[in-house]
Amino acid sequence: MQAEIITIGDEILIGQIIDTNSAFISKELNKTGVSVYQITSVQDEKEHILQALSEAEDRADIIIITGGLGPTKDDITKHTICEYFNDTLVQNDEVLAHVEELFARYISTPISEVNRRQALVPSKAVALMNKFGTAPGMWLEKNGKVFVSLPGVPYEMRALITDEVLPRVRQKFELPFILHKTVLTYGMGESAIAEKIESWENDLPSYIKLAYLPNLGKVRLRLTAKGKDKELIEKEVDKRVESLRQIIGDIIYGTENDHSIEFLIGSLLTEKGMTLATAESCTGGKIAERITAQAGASAYFKGSVVSYATEVKTNILGVPEAAIKEHSVVSARVAEEMAKNVRQLLKTDFAISTTGNAGPSKGESDAEVGTVFIGIASPEGIFSFEANMGNHREKVINKTANKAFELLQKEILKF
Amino acid sequence: MQAEIITIGDEILIGQIIDTNSAFISKELNKTGVSVYQITSVQDEKEHILQALSEAEDRADIIIITGGLGPTKDDITKHTICEYFNDTLVQNDEVLAHVEELFARYISTPISEVNRRQALVPSKAVALMNKFGTAPGMWLEKNGKVFVSLPGVPYEMRALITDEVLPRVRQKFELPFILHKTVLTYGMGESAIAEKIESWENDLPSYIKLAYLPNLGKVRLRLTAKGKDKELIEKEVDKRVESLRQIIGDIIYGTENDHSIEFLIGSLLTEKGMTLATAESCTGGKIAERITAQAGASAYFKGSVVSYATEVKTNILGVPEAAIKEHSVVSARVAEEMAKNVRQLLKTDFAISTTGNAGPSKGESDAEVGTVFIGIASPEGIFSFEANMGNHREKVINKTANKAFELLQKEILKF
Repeated sequence: MQAEIITIGDEILIGQIIDTNSAFISKELNKTGVSVYQITSVQDEKEHILQALSEAEDRADIIIITGGLGPTKDDITKHTICEYFNDTLVQNDEVLAHVEELFARYISTPISEVNRRQALVPSKAVALMNKFGTAPGMWLEKNGKVFVSLPGVPYEMRALITDEVLPRVRQKFELPFILHKTVLTYGMGESAIAEKIESWENDLPSYIKLAYLPNLGKVRLRLTAKGKDKELIEKEVDKRVESLRQIIGDIIYGTENDHSIEFLIGSLLTEKGMTLATAESCTGGKIAERITAQAGASAYFKGSVVSYATEVKTNILGVPEAAIKEHSVVSARVAEEMAKNVRQLLKTDFAISTTGNAGPSKGESDAEVGTVFIGIASPEGIFSFEANMGNHREKVINKTANKAFELLQKEILKF
Repeated sequence: MQAEIITIGDEILIGQIIDTNSAFISKELNKTGVSVYQITSVQDEKEHILQALSEAEDRADIIIITGGLGPTKDDITKHTICEYFNDTLVQNDEVLAHVEELFARYISTPISEVNRRQALVPSKAVALMNKFGTAPGMWLEKNGKVFVSLPGVPYEMRALITDEVLPRVRQKFELPFILHKTVLTYGMGESAIAEKIESWENDLPSYIKLAYLPNLGKVRLRLTAKGKDKELIEKEVDKRVESLRQIIGDIIYGTENDHSIEFLIGSLLTEKGMTLATAESCTGGKIAERITAQAGASAYFKGSVVSYATEVKTNILGVPEAAIKEHSVVSARVAEEMAKNVRQLLKTDFAISTTGNAGPSKGESDAEVGTVFIGIASPEGIFSFEANMGNHREKVINKTANKAFELLQKEILKF
């Protein structure tokens, strides 16, 4: 079963918004057993939309269209779909009552003729009620194929996909089972991994595909299996992951697709009842921010001293000025002092520190752009790690954060 | 001049990653005078890529392809492009030297045959040097049309677009001028605005298009003009915005700008020679992280105390325990103490503080989920701002950071 997604809107093609809808729809369809063959973004232009619909109909069984359902002149999706289906618009009373209720309850301006027109839908369509907005979704069928038109506002679209579209898709089609399992690794490049697991990869059955997803010092290995027998597929994928562990178990830090390393660290610390602080220079708060993006972080994260200026390292963190003079502010010694002292200052079990030069130009020290020291303090002692994280500021910051989480996780696992 | 973007990678079609590359490329092409007609995302599958290339060639003058250039088996873009151009791969010595240098400098694993193969490019292609990675970009021409293949890693792709692709596009094609101007409004729905400005909209010349972009209580009105005469277009768009102000000036709060607010704040502080610190609770380092993501931040940013635990607010920031007892940790008083004290502690001109409950559940205080206080300290005094930022953790953190930057910018402008 193949689907295609067509997103409509000039704002996507001029780069004013990032299309997050397609990723959500793709993920949900995949979980339901529908592969997405292609995603196409087109302008608010009738001929172009008609062409995209016709091309998609040739290739896919399910065509999901988002965007262009607003009440204003630039929104032409509904009329274009009507034309594609040789249909006319008729008033849907249930939608009209809903639009009137939304206006009465939440909107201060009075309802107008333009708003009431949101209740017009093609006569051949089933209207899908949009509880968060005025534009209904529309479900149309043609030669056994399904066309679904949805509003582009993300939270309206998401609710319609979950509550209205997926149940109907499951009812209409007999779907295969699709399983994605992603193995998370750190500390080795994708080509080095590929060489190590070459014969394992060649041995995979044809219904299991492998993909390498490298990202700033981490490589995700994604296994995708598809077939009718759910049990067989789950068993086979588990078996393959197990045999993968025998080859590269030392660099695997998790398998759950949706969990970040900061989530896993949070779970570990919560489980052990231990706490964490950070002292960040070159990462500028990035590590703290990623930790506190997790719900429940207050159970194990006490805080951070972002010591961007050298004087903050000495005055607040108590790094001895002599150490900075002797070793430079970007050094193993300073990283270790920062980690040790922030751990004492904030009274935690663990601490991470970072000091380095994220670029683009050399800072107060003579360190090369990209040189970074990470310090880790634990109840058993302090150590530091040195690396060159490259010559791109954003990359240096993120790779440093990733590496710090990797070092910390290994350390926590000792307790 | 029309372009199309083809993004290649199963990870997009299963919803594992959000395609942010297309938005960047679209925006940059638009600024250069190239419209993007369509964006197509396809799987790592030869026939599908070949079909997408051929369809795009029929419609566009410039075809930008991203993704699928990694060294592993699942990356097939380079071979497929070679097939499309009836070409063969040849070794590019400059690329090889670069790959070898990257490995020597930044990568701990030894270079392998697989890595060296990154230096193979189609014989008809101009290799575009990728300073941040091993996969070169490729520029190919065919019947006056241009095909550019770029790696999918965002920061590598971005540098290649800016440094290599756009200068070549400008040199090869004579480009029109495209101007986007977005007027920001709040407090009125899109259909109400549409009714109010109907005759203004009807009066727009044919080369100016209007779009409505509603988002959570705000509506952005985007004017897009295209033509040869840059001066005429700028003048006409300014005139139309001016006449729009006469009709709905009361709901217009600004026009959109390409620079992030943290960039603008950095420029202001650098210009004035003034400095900044933050004391963050509910934003957990997000504000510091956004500031230090800017190159040159060390000129004006001294650091942050991320006081996630209450004891860090008292011990490090010196917020009086009595104030917390009397007002609760989520209060105007605590926000003001935090801002005042971190400004003194880090000896800066300005300070931002945040305290609140980002959710999903209630924290140490009794404050509703979403309640946030932002404190601002300047050489002239301290004030705070209260708001409820909603019931979604990520949204609360980001809205709070945005609001803090907005308050700070207004404050800096007084000096």
